[in-house]
Amino acid sequence: MPRRETPRRKPAPRSPCPVACSLDLLGDKWTLLVLRDMILFGKQRYNQFAESPERIASNILTDRLQRLEKQGLIVSRKYQDHPPRHEYHLTRAGADLLPVLKELVIWGGKHIAGSFQPTPAMMRKVKRDLNKRMAGG
Amino acid sequence: MPRRETPRRKPAPRSPCPVACSLDLLGDKWTLLVLRDMILFGKQRYNQFAESPERIASNILTDRLQRLEKQGLIVSRKYQDHPPRHEYHLTRAGADLLPVLKELVIWGGKHIAGSFQPTPAMMRKVKRDLNKRMAGG
Repeated sequence: MPRRETPRRKPAPRSPCPVACSLDLLGDKWTLLVLRDMILFGKQRYNQFAESPERIASNILTDRLQRLEKQGLIVSRKYQDHPPRHEYHLTRAGADLLPVLKELVIWGGKHIAGSFQPTPAMMRKVKRDLNKRMAGG
Repeated sequence: MPRRETPRRKPAPRSPCPVACSLDLLGDKWTLLVLRDMILFGKQRYNQFAESPERIASNILTDRLQRLEKQGLIVSRKYQDHPPRHEYHLTRAGADLLPVLKELVIWGGKHIAGSFQPTPAMMRKVKRDLNKRMAGG
């Protein structure tokens, strides 16, 4: 008999504040790093995320990819059948996090010692590349 | 004999990426809400934070205020001796998180159902009020 998935109730938002609502989805140390890999670097595959310098643990990566898909920020597409392999693509809601990442980049680069600070030209290139990817589907 | 505080080593940053560095400090569900209360609403006192609609637990609030002070995003000033009571003020590094919050507000308001969306005029007033408070010390 196929296993029935237990229906999970979405937890109620803590408040109607858009900061609180956003942090309900993004407020942890890893979610925005997976989205960074997709938005800033165009990564799409599990192994590409796993290779990032922060060395995300595989159980956390799997969990975050599943959550992001449930929340509508990414979609998965199968690109290989045996064994099954998926690629992950940003939705418009996911891609719209670019300005949040950009402000975190500026703030971290300015206020945290040892943090890399990209040039404005690098950030412009990131935006152009993302727009191209989103237009290309 | 006075209790000696165990020296805590700062954990090494996960990478030089400014997003990862920022999330080392801000990547949880509560830190940016305390900063929201200070940056967007001008709150300064423990009871004011505790009254916010998300109902932060008192141990989490105490922990986040201590961490934010250690990290140089806020400073505390005693405003009463018996019993001792502190007010919390933003440093320049803390106040510089306004653009991050602004982008989270825009993103949450656009993409999360039930999330409140402030008008541009409200956001401009927030910025003016914050600039006044930062100039006034």
